[in-house]
Amino acid sequence: MPQPEAPDEAAVSDLVVANRILAAEGVLDGFGHVSMRDPRDPKCYLMSRSLAPALVTAADIVQHDLDNRPVRDEGHSLYYERWIHGEVYKARPEVNAIVHSHSPTVVPFASTKAPLRPILHNASFLGFGTPVFEIRNLVPNSDLMISTAALGKALAETLGPSADVVLLRGHGNVVVGPTIQITVFRAYYTEINARQQLNAMILGRDDVVYMNAGECATTDKIMQAVAGRPWDLWKRRVQREMRRAEVEDCL
Amino acid sequence: MPQPEAPDEAAVSDLVVANRILAAEGVLDGFGHVSMRDPRDPKCYLMSRSLAPALVTAADIVQHDLDNRPVRDEGHSLYYERWIHGEVYKARPEVNAIVHSHSPTVVPFASTKAPLRPILHNASFLGFGTPVFEIRNLVPNSDLMISTAALGKALAETLGPSADVVLLRGHGNVVVGPTIQITVFRAYYTEINARQQLNAMILGRDDVVYMNAGECATTDKIMQAVAGRPWDLWKRRVQREMRRAEVEDCL
Amino acid sequence: MPQPEAPDEAAVSDLVVANRILAAEGVLDGFGHVSMRDPRDPKCYLMSRSLAPALVTAADIVQHDLDNRPVRDEGHSLYYERWIHGEVYKARPEVNAIVHSHSPTVVPFASTKAPLRPILHNASFLGFGTPVFEIRNLVPNSDLMISTAALGKALAETLGPSADVVLLRGHGNVVVGPTIQITVFRAYYTEINARQQLNAMILGRDDVVYMNAGECATTDKIMQAVAGRPWDLWKRRVQREMRRAEVEDCL
Amino acid sequence: MPQPEAPDEAAVSDLVVANRILAAEGVLDGFGHVSMRDPRDPKCYLMSRSLAPALVTAADIVQHDLDNRPVRDEGHSLYYERWIHGEVYKARPEVNAIVHSHSPTVVPFASTKAPLRPILHNASFLGFGTPVFEIRNLVPNSDLMISTAALGKALAETLGPSADVVLLRGHGNVVVGPTIQITVFRAYYTEINARQQLNAMILGRDDVVYMNAGECATTDKIMQAVAGRPWDLWKRRVQREMRRAEVEDCL
Repeated sequence: MPQPEAPDEAAVSDLVVANRILAAEGVLDGFGHVSMRDPRDPKCYLMSRSLAPALVTAADIVQHDLDNRPVRDEGHSLYYERWIHGEVYKARPEVNAIVHSHSPTVVPFASTKAPLRPILHNASFLGFGTPVFEIRNLVPNSDLMISTAALGKALAETLGPSADVVLLRGHGNVVVGPTIQITVFRAYYTEINARQQLNAMILGRDDVVYMNAGECATTDKIMQAVAGRPWDLWKRRVQREMRRAEVEDCL
Repeated sequence: MPQPEAPDEAAVSDLVVANRILAAEGVLDGFGHVSMRDPRDPKCYLMSRSLAPALVTAADIVQHDLDNRPVRDEGHSLYYERWIHGEVYKARPEVNAIVHSHSPTVVPFASTKAPLRPILHNASFLGFGTPVFEIRNLVPNSDLMISTAALGKALAETLGPSADVVLLRGHGNVVVGPTIQITVFRAYYTEINARQQLNAMILGRDDVVYMNAGECATTDKIMQAVAGRPWDLWKRRVQREMRRAEVEDCL
Repeated sequence: MPQPEAPDEAAVSDLVVANRILAAEGVLDGFGHVSMRDPRDPKCYLMSRSLAPALVTAADIVQHDLDNRPVRDEGHSLYYERWIHGEVYKARPEVNAIVHSHSPTVVPFASTKAPLRPILHNASFLGFGTPVFEIRNLVPNSDLMISTAALGKALAETLGPSADVVLLRGHGNVVVGPTIQITVFRAYYTEINARQQLNAMILGRDDVVYMNAGECATTDKIMQAVAGRPWDLWKRRVQREMRRAEVEDCL
Repeated sequence: MPQPEAPDEAAVSDLVVANRILAAEGVLDGFGHVSMRDPRDPKCYLMSRSLAPALVTAADIVQHDLDNRPVRDEGHSLYYERWIHGEVYKARPEVNAIVHSHSPTVVPFASTKAPLRPILHNASFLGFGTPVFEIRNLVPNSDLMISTAALGKALAETLGPSADVVLLRGHGNVVVGPTIQITVFRAYYTEINARQQLNAMILGRDDVVYMNAGECATTDKIMQAVAGRPWDLWKRRVQREMRRAEVEDCL
């Protein structure tokens, strides 16, 4: 009988690092999740079992199919909102990584009429759309969470074919990208852009010069090309932190 | 003669961890206090002697009766505002833990007419009410503190039968819950929600979509169920920090 | 020939700790200074030689007379603005410690018409006045600094007989108190109050309920009595940090 | 055959420290760069190869000529926006160091009509001008980056003969100075001033008292003279951090 194949080691390592980076940078707190499409099987994705992102290790990564079931049932409790991931991977074949966070400065944009727009070149991907998902239009008195396939599908529809970010009213946001590095970069700069846009709106609500569509298209290409630079920095920091914790846990 | 019973070890450990978590997360500074109803005797509660929360250890935990007297007088100086705890435990039998903090972004809501309202699903409990206690209506020229049984009782009355948070004008807030984990969760997300609501009001004061009553009722149930996830993360962090401090104090 | 007396060891130690605390808490950056009246000679004060506060050690403490001259000239370069200290000690005999900082959220209050007022009970001392010193009224085209005895005297006059804080337009603030612990407490809560007041003014500029005069008088007495609690916490943190730095500097 | 001369060791060390300081203080994130004119050859400058500033070591420093070519081609990938440096060094012979950052609170000033103006004495150099470079006036649909000699030249022209800071809409800023210490000081206080000015504008947009031209001229001289004080502090911190990382990387 063939052994069930263990997931790609480099992919798992990147996914652990991605969880740790976004927790260290304040995009994720005790909640939120990061997934990547399985490089060995595009009909599956890798994501931690239900756990605070800052605690995720390689041993916690579970292979899910696109219906959000564990490929090998090892009895792990899984994220309550994993439906986000399966439905977005189905709808967007070019997407290979997804971050769901409650990124703190993005929530206010999700809950007012102020659209989140690109003010910083690193966040040029915001120019491809930042739709808001209002769960109340579908389910009254809900817990705001994406806890069914139908809600996952509706969310993927609001995200649409070209946006890289969708905001969830009263809740958080979902960011997608072609690689885990680029998606982490985008999740980080979504938060940074939100802070800078908020401050710009204080300085002069009607005066803010946002990036235009042409600038966004040109700039996003460059940003995808350089996303590895902050990744290398962040990765080194979280690896050092993980090693430090390991040493201390042995004391 | 029977030995006076030492408090439940697991409860004391959780209480120490709760103090450290809320200090590490910036909800508590050098002031504030955390208590839990004694799991062995609901007519008592456990709380540190008068000490900055970040310094509390198991040895500092004192069993108080609901009239806020130490069960065993060991000569410790006690918190000046312990009346908050006894009176709320008397008025709210389902409450098993209480946090009193000067959580920084909550104070502005306590001192203006802007009601603190739930904008983030994690803070759905805010939907059950966020009354403001104005001590000036009872005592002119006071020190703003809850330093008598009468003030503790008046505060508990303002909290009322169903709210989980009461704001103290010019001072801080009190958060309650059925377990220490849920109460720490609520104290943390009260601060987070205040920050996000403030930012949302900057973006569009009259546009903010708050959670409605039905959403709050549904969501709070889920949040109580998942409050252990950030607790596990925070606990690991403060335990590592406590161990690090111990090692360093031996150098 | 008698040996020149070394300054009181406990006083020096407290002064070093005060410098480190205010740097660690973000009240002081690379600039600013902390002094205390010499407990052995009220006509002198102790203060570091010219140095970033976070680097001050016992060996850097210099005894100054009230004309801001070193009692023993050891060739140290002294703070350019030491005139603040001598003139305030002369004018206010009950003052035993002084902090001059560029505390970040206080500067905006120094440079607009919005008066800094007590919104948090810990900052009740702000109720005794927060006058603004406008150097431009005395010296056109100055460097904004208190670099002469005349400017020190004018600043002390603006502080007046009863305020504990004076703001310097375009520059920073000066906080005074009867002990080093209380003065550090006040410098810290001046910054905290400024942040909370700013947020309250965003929530509802005309609605903010400030502490009234009676509340301030009552509350300040309590705060002076409990100022040791955060001091103990902060002291333990900076001592641990100092020990850690020492160990690392030996590696 | 003579060996190609290695760059001045003290200069390289200062440049590494400058990179680390600005990353540690939040002026630089994963992007941005710091250069200094080569003390041995004013027709060259020293700058890291393309790398996150927090990771720069002495081995990464590359000597560039003023046309932004490496003097010795060692195959390193170079910063995409190095054109900023060569063109500013050509246009401003008295400039000996340049920082390009995406300093977070400065971006909002670059993208609105609110001019960045000196509110804090440490930022008096802002009084010499804070022009905004709008790349859209030159290149439609650009990536906002200074990726050609022509754009570098246009930016240097916008900076002009006397300003020390130029803001780049949607992007960041460039700060210059006569020494690396003064330039780091200025980059840091540009960010600090932006935060304080934003807060002052909230308190009273039309009431803010900025430093006037005479005050700026006088104060900048003093600030240049004392820029070494925070530098010494920051340097000690980053050197300790670098040593700590080295030790940990050996575990």
